[in-house]
Amino acid sequence: MNLIPWEERPKGSKDVVWRYSQNPIINRDAIPTSNSVFNSAVVPYKDGFAGVFRCDNKAVQMNIFAGFSDDGINWKINENPINFEAHDKGQILGDYKYDPRVVFLEDRYWITWCEGHNGPTIGIGYTFDFKEFFQCESAFLPFNRNGVLLPEKIDGKYAMMSRPSDNGHTPFGDIYMSYSPDMKYWGEHRHMMSPTPFKDSAWQCTKIGAGSVPFLTNEGWLMFYHGVINTCNGFRYAMGSAILDTNQPHIVKYRTQPYLLTPSKTYEQVGDVPNVIFPCASLQDVKNDKVTIYYGGADTIVAIAFGYISEILAFTKNNSII
Amino acid sequence: MNLIPWEERPKGSKDVVWRYSQNPIINRDAIPTSNSVFNSAVVPYKDGFAGVFRCDNKAVQMNIFAGFSDDGINWKINENPINFEAHDKGQILGDYKYDPRVVFLEDRYWITWCEGHNGPTIGIGYTFDFKEFFQCESAFLPFNRNGVLLPEKIDGKYAMMSRPSDNGHTPFGDIYMSYSPDMKYWGEHRHMMSPTPFKDSAWQCTKIGAGSVPFLTNEGWLMFYHGVINTCNGFRYAMGSAILDTNQPHIVKYRTQPYLLTPSKTYEQVGDVPNVIFPCASLQDVKNDKVTIYYGGADTIVAIAFGYISEILAFTKNNSII
Amino acid sequence: MNLIPWEERPKGSKDVVWRYSQNPIINRDAIPTSNSVFNSAVVPYKDGFAGVFRCDNKAVQMNIFAGFSDDGINWKINENPINFEAHDKGQILGDYKYDPRVVFLEDRYWITWCEGHNGPTIGIGYTFDFKEFFQCESAFLPFNRNGVLLPEKIDGKYAMMSRPSDNGHTPFGDIYMSYSPDMKYWGEHRHMMSPTPFKDSAWQCTKIGAGSVPFLTNEGWLMFYHGVINTCNGFRYAMGSAILDTNQPHIVKYRTQPYLLTPSKTYEQVGDVPNVIFPCASLQDVKNDKVTIYYGGADTIVAIAFGYISEILAFTKNNSII
Amino acid sequence: MNLIPWEERPKGSKDVVWRYSQNPIINRDAIPTSNSVFNSAVVPYKDGFAGVFRCDNKAVQMNIFAGFSDDGINWKINENPINFEAHDKGQILGDYKYDPRVVFLEDRYWITWCEGHNGPTIGIGYTFDFKEFFQCESAFLPFNRNGVLLPEKIDGKYAMMSRPSDNGHTPFGDIYMSYSPDMKYWGEHRHMMSPTPFKDSAWQCTKIGAGSVPFLTNEGWLMFYHGVINTCNGFRYAMGSAILDTNQPHIVKYRTQPYLLTPSKTYEQVGDVPNVIFPCASLQDVKNDKVTIYYGGADTIVAIAFGYISEILAFTKNNSII
Amino acid sequence: MNLIPWEERPKGSKDVVWRYSQNPIINRDAIPTSNSVFNSAVVPYKDGFAGVFRCDNKAVQMNIFAGFSDDGINWKINENPINFEAHDKGQILGDYKYDPRVVFLEDRYWITWCEGHNGPTIGIGYTFDFKEFFQCESAFLPFNRNGVLLPEKIDGKYAMMSRPSDNGHTPFGDIYMSYSPDMKYWGEHRHMMSPTPFKDSAWQCTKIGAGSVPFLTNEGWLMFYHGVINTCNGFRYAMGSAILDTNQPHIVKYRTQPYLLTPSKTYEQVGDVPNVIFPCASLQDVKNDKVTIYYGGADTIVAIAFGYISEILAFTKNNSII
Amino acid sequence: MNLIPWEERPKGSKDVVWRYSQNPIINRDAIPTSNSVFNSAVVPYKDGFAGVFRCDNKAVQMNIFAGFSDDGINWKINENPINFEAHDKGQILGDYKYDPRVVFLEDRYWITWCEGHNGPTIGIGYTFDFKEFFQCESAFLPFNRNGVLLPEKIDGKYAMMSRPSDNGHTPFGDIYMSYSPDMKYWGEHRHMMSPTPFKDSAWQCTKIGAGSVPFLTNEGWLMFYHGVINTCNGFRYAMGSAILDTNQPHIVKYRTQPYLLTPSKTYEQVGDVPNVIFPCASLQDVKNDKVTIYYGGADTIVAIAFGYISEILAFTKNNSII
Repeated sequence: MNLIPWEERPKGSKDVVWRYSQNPIINRDAIPTSNSVFNSAVVPYKDGFAGVFRCDNKAVQMNIFAGFSDDGINWKINENPINFEAHDKGQILGDYKYDPRVVFLEDRYWITWCEGHNGPTIGIGYTFDFKEFFQCESAFLPFNRNGVLLPEKIDGKYAMMSRPSDNGHTPFGDIYMSYSPDMKYWGEHRHMMSPTPFKDSAWQCTKIGAGSVPFLTNEGWLMFYHGVINTCNGFRYAMGSAILDTNQPHIVKYRTQPYLLTPSKTYEQVGDVPNVIFPCASLQDVKNDKVTIYYGGADTIVAIAFGYISEILAFTKNNSII
Repeated sequence: MNLIPWEERPKGSKDVVWRYSQNPIINRDAIPTSNSVFNSAVVPYKDGFAGVFRCDNKAVQMNIFAGFSDDGINWKINENPINFEAHDKGQILGDYKYDPRVVFLEDRYWITWCEGHNGPTIGIGYTFDFKEFFQCESAFLPFNRNGVLLPEKIDGKYAMMSRPSDNGHTPFGDIYMSYSPDMKYWGEHRHMMSPTPFKDSAWQCTKIGAGSVPFLTNEGWLMFYHGVINTCNGFRYAMGSAILDTNQPHIVKYRTQPYLLTPSKTYEQVGDVPNVIFPCASLQDVKNDKVTIYYGGADTIVAIAFGYISEILAFTKNNSII
Repeated sequence: MNLIPWEERPKGSKDVVWRYSQNPIINRDAIPTSNSVFNSAVVPYKDGFAGVFRCDNKAVQMNIFAGFSDDGINWKINENPINFEAHDKGQILGDYKYDPRVVFLEDRYWITWCEGHNGPTIGIGYTFDFKEFFQCESAFLPFNRNGVLLPEKIDGKYAMMSRPSDNGHTPFGDIYMSYSPDMKYWGEHRHMMSPTPFKDSAWQCTKIGAGSVPFLTNEGWLMFYHGVINTCNGFRYAMGSAILDTNQPHIVKYRTQPYLLTPSKTYEQVGDVPNVIFPCASLQDVKNDKVTIYYGGADTIVAIAFGYISEILAFTKNNSII
Repeated sequence: MNLIPWEERPKGSKDVVWRYSQNPIINRDAIPTSNSVFNSAVVPYKDGFAGVFRCDNKAVQMNIFAGFSDDGINWKINENPINFEAHDKGQILGDYKYDPRVVFLEDRYWITWCEGHNGPTIGIGYTFDFKEFFQCESAFLPFNRNGVLLPEKIDGKYAMMSRPSDNGHTPFGDIYMSYSPDMKYWGEHRHMMSPTPFKDSAWQCTKIGAGSVPFLTNEGWLMFYHGVINTCNGFRYAMGSAILDTNQPHIVKYRTQPYLLTPSKTYEQVGDVPNVIFPCASLQDVKNDKVTIYYGGADTIVAIAFGYISEILAFTKNNSII
Repeated sequence: MNLIPWEERPKGSKDVVWRYSQNPIINRDAIPTSNSVFNSAVVPYKDGFAGVFRCDNKAVQMNIFAGFSDDGINWKINENPINFEAHDKGQILGDYKYDPRVVFLEDRYWITWCEGHNGPTIGIGYTFDFKEFFQCESAFLPFNRNGVLLPEKIDGKYAMMSRPSDNGHTPFGDIYMSYSPDMKYWGEHRHMMSPTPFKDSAWQCTKIGAGSVPFLTNEGWLMFYHGVINTCNGFRYAMGSAILDTNQPHIVKYRTQPYLLTPSKTYEQVGDVPNVIFPCASLQDVKNDKVTIYYGGADTIVAIAFGYISEILAFTKNNSII
Repeated sequence: MNLIPWEERPKGSKDVVWRYSQNPIINRDAIPTSNSVFNSAVVPYKDGFAGVFRCDNKAVQMNIFAGFSDDGINWKINENPINFEAHDKGQILGDYKYDPRVVFLEDRYWITWCEGHNGPTIGIGYTFDFKEFFQCESAFLPFNRNGVLLPEKIDGKYAMMSRPSDNGHTPFGDIYMSYSPDMKYWGEHRHMMSPTPFKDSAWQCTKIGAGSVPFLTNEGWLMFYHGVINTCNGFRYAMGSAILDTNQPHIVKYRTQPYLLTPSKTYEQVGDVPNVIFPCASLQDVKNDKVTIYYGGADTIVAIAFGYISEILAFTKNNSII
């Protein structure tokens, strides 16, 4: 079993989630061609970890790259982007790819991302070995972002969250769940969560989006998500957690009124897009009650944070706004 | 066979499509509660015609109503809106319904419309008799409008056009085709048509949307659609035609660079939303080469126009911009 | 007693409020210098009626003018605008005046209007004879519009409705009540009514504003107000009614979900600002259960409409949305 | 000498400028391909008149067409657009042409218009005979509109007014004068006129643009121009007059605070763009003190209006705002 | 007498106002629940100082908290927000509170703040002991911000500055003075200051707002205020000073064309809202000519700055723009 | 010959252009009155260097100042702005000046800048000695920015690049070339470069502008320019290079798809306008293949960067997007 990255809570801290003292773990120039590396996803793989990384190049073209690590902290990212083969003939490939998520489901690693197809929508692909990759039909019509698959089928169907958007810097956004019998045709769209009223929880009052792949706990599926406030100087992205019903995961049971993390370190406050924390993945060691969260900082770097699952569950339940 | 409404081309006119001299055929106060009746759909039904009508009430709530006619011109619209029963348990019903289309396919009349579900998306329902109506799962995530089904399955799948949108008076919009094996789960989304460059065809340079249900001709599927220009005094909606490939209907073979109809009658220029022509249906008498187009005028009334199918096909081919 | 203008309901009509068949009663060129005459207020005066009229001149400068009528339909408007004397020394006079309301209260005719004072706010003045006019301190800070006084003191205090605004074509707006012991200092601001949700009553979903001076009925104060929807071609203004609590008039007891009048005559649909009905006054003959409503059409002319008070009260109660 | 179109002032009218009773003189379908004919320019030519007409076709592509008339009222417009030859090699031709003006200067008829060249700017061309046309270098960088040449050189230089703009429905706009020694290189740009403050003359408070070609009077150059107000339902275009200094025509001596014409006829209030009066030319019979103004109505048709030059001069001087 | 915080001007500095070398004096996590502590107000109290602090919690809900300090630098802030009792029955309490100011006037400490009441307006409350707090009627209708009371009555009336706003990130804003006989009803609204033209003083060209409570000097009331410029990357807030007429304080005698402080330290440039200096209070030791200014930095922390009153007065007079 | 500033490429770096390790070379407080010093231009002058510097003062008024240096790194900037004399009588002087460029051409140093003249346009002036300065006619009508002259005449004509703009934070912008026989009248406007599609080179997808004065190489004119992306937190400015045809310099032969420099140092990421790199000049030592680039950082300071000309040419050719 893979030991997930871990660092104990700093002395004196009462934070439910705390940052790694050596953040960022991946810098903007992690590969020779990269302008920035951020909003990336990791999973346990063999004895270590594999990941899919958003590396914008120096033309600021967005693409996703495979990478590998023994310890989840030191990563070797391929210098060339993932080259998807079409799963079906007639398959349409998009203009750009960003903000990947990865989940192991049944027999393979599924990857979802934001796919450029006359506007952003949710791309789907898979790999068995992080060497060969196959791209499937996009899940939805544009405009959509933040597609996140559940790691198990629900009632025999695949389940994916997403955040319908517009064709710009979308100033609104709710999270929906959709279901599919075959990962190709999607329906049964269910509304899950909306932004909160400004007076109740302003950090998530403009838009929200699914973040990490949910994992099952005794309280339901635990997910880290981002919320956005529109300040007079632009959007600020922070992170909260939500617990989804085990059997009907489009039902949100609890959701944090306070954030768990907000931009307050320089690597979150200063960069290509200031004041952004954007979670895309978590690694969990359920036996030891530990979770490690991977998030992008300021659209520039990758950082991690830690927490005890039981504490996060309790905090989410005790500070919930639905 | 039902004789479709018809009036010959006025003397001296060279228009490919011409208006009915007695327009509008349905006025804003067609039922006691209506503020306006427009953007409505009709089909042959028994010896005459049936239709689904958008009647906004005097609170300007949008809903759809069944109606019947012997001649396609004089309509009796039910005073109460359609009361849909859920096709499945767990079915979600929306807040409002507008801009219906109707198509007979296999064994029943399918209705699609713009359904309010945390924003507009495409609602689907059916009826066998225009008395009992059943509502299915919505086809897509919000935000979407102008969902139009093809009247035949393509390669064993249902095919629906739609126009992804945003949550306001969307200032952009392309037409896509999506496919479904079962009218419940949708995928294989294909881009069909974009707005044209301003300099090439300004009447359709801001957004476009599918209009009438396509019908098969020897050139392919013939459809009437709307195009929009954003003037300094708001949107103006005009009507063009497109011919879709018979077997791969997401491929647009021809599309009119000139409009077929633009607002130039008072009932199109003045009303709740000035300068709108919005086609939602056509009736065709293929044997006699005739088609009658139903369209909303100024978001207030229903009007009709006529044309010879062969002339429209020729005009579309000879004046095409793709 | 002054006989208010009156015309019976047209045969066959079921409308609660119906238009005068000879509308408009005042045309845009009613005085030699006028570009338009609209959004004006009338009261019984001596044996006939007096009024304060918004006449924009041909430079499209906005000002208010006194006028007189024997029958409430044929008006003679002064060719020069009202020349206000300052009620107090140190009084500040604004740049422009528009949308007046008039009410008799205690011993004089109070006039309120939209006063230009580094932005629009609520001007206050009075007259005893419609010859000499005095201007008081403006009631509120900018930005505000649609200030309407109640015709009686409430608990010994003057009561005024208004609609806080911004410095442009305000895309939002609620009605508030404020109180004053002396018509100079104002406080006790109470929220009264908001726009309605789009799905429930779209004609008043963008903003609302007080219209006519309320008059007392056995159900409370009856007022006609305007509601606005933001279409893709601009704002459309329609008219509803509200019943306010007799003793605490900032409490809205009932309010029409449907409109009473919406732009559907040419003089309401076409003009300087298309699709506007804007009520500013009513005359009531309570003994005979009659009310005559004065409203501006298309920001260009003045029109009137009629109704039976008891019917309007019943309609408001039976079709209420709060 | 060509007798300009003329109709006496209607009885009882005190208007300084009055409309032709048979307006519009050119309808939207004046040529078989036209969607609309408007914003067009005329000049005396031989025994009658020639003109350059903006005819948008039914694809709503904008282009300019030559036309001829014996009486200035009944026009025969060529069915094909003007085919410009390049005056110089290397000449760049634009995507579209609209809003022409024509002026005889020295030995030829110069035409200026709005030329599409990666955005609108001022195109220049000339003809000797309205059969052969030559296109020169565009005068300015984009974005510019409403280029109007003076009919005489000033200090040996050509003088052109224009209205710097942006790439959309520009919400601002002042008139400038520029000079050129050779009609190819332009400089000495001088600011002439700004929009007026809202409270002083609201009809021209958003933007203004040169209209007709100025002609010399004993008071200076007399020009008709358009002014725009941004209402809550879009832009409204009205017409005023200005008198420019004879020798330094970038100095505006007088300018009407009131408009001369504002949209109040159906052909000005209803059409492709409601509420537009847009003057592009005048014909003057100086000996008889008469001027006939040509203007576009509602971006759809061509209309004319009349006035006595001396009255217009007096009115402009007596009602001036600078 | 309380010794105000003080640090001498750094060697070599010619700044009229200089920062404390140990800034920030209050960090974002000053209390366990705080996301940020900023835009806060202090007054002398007993032997030391008391204050009212804006502490946004980790749900980014805005509220105000009492705090105490012996030296004005080291503060102990209560962990629970101020719990206001209603001064009158029927009192309306708002949704949120932010940006407080405090002033001792007559017999008590008056607090004003931005109160959420269907939009932001000016809340008023008082305390005698910073333990019990009472809330009065809000002063004005929404939308308003930056309400600052004068510390003395003027002609027997309370005087309050405010900045009328809209319901968003208001892109405009002037300072007004209003008067009240009783702290309940307000009137006599007087315009005081506008933003300056871009070319004359760009740091305050978008909007301005009253900052610290004015204090009396031999030149008049001295106040520190904020000015805003709208850059291509959002608003930047800097600080200037103004001198108000002693007896008619709505008359601004002088006002700095240059700023006194602009964001140039990391704690002003980086934080929840970058590039913000927002003064809310000052402490003055008039005998020793010293003033200490309290301001929020980057909407995240509290900082202080120092100056000699006589130098600031002289600078304001010598560098004035009205 | 003047030795240009130089520092070798850091060990291990593969960057084509690298920053000076002692950046910034000029701080925001370089002169006593300055708020910021940035976007400035330098040229070889006598044995050292002269420059024209944008120094915004503490009222944030924009003006340009002369300065001198022996080594190109340590600068002495005059404390008073350049005082231009009018080259011609009747010359119009603007409200403000910013973003200067300097070029030696024929017999003098020409200066171009953004001149405030009812909106920004391109000012032109010259000096022989950096003591006396003369201002000429502005080149173009507003709105324009980033005027950059070529250092040689082309076909006997002066050649200037510029970026037509609007009157705000222009969200679009292409580079054009214009020609002039005499530096007074300009024409022959040629479109050179547009922003790139988002998917191809996002850092320059919103607008671009000429930066440094081009210098001749064996490949053509080499210029450094800025490109802008509109993020959800505002504009980000980066730097690329372009090669223009030697004889027809309005033809862009190559242009970098990747940027050469993007904001990634604190002095580029944090300041008055975060995330700005804005090149305005270069010094080249062609014999030794060296170029030193001067650029503004975060609208606050001046920094420099270095490169080998041959490497930059090769990189531009090998990574070109047109």
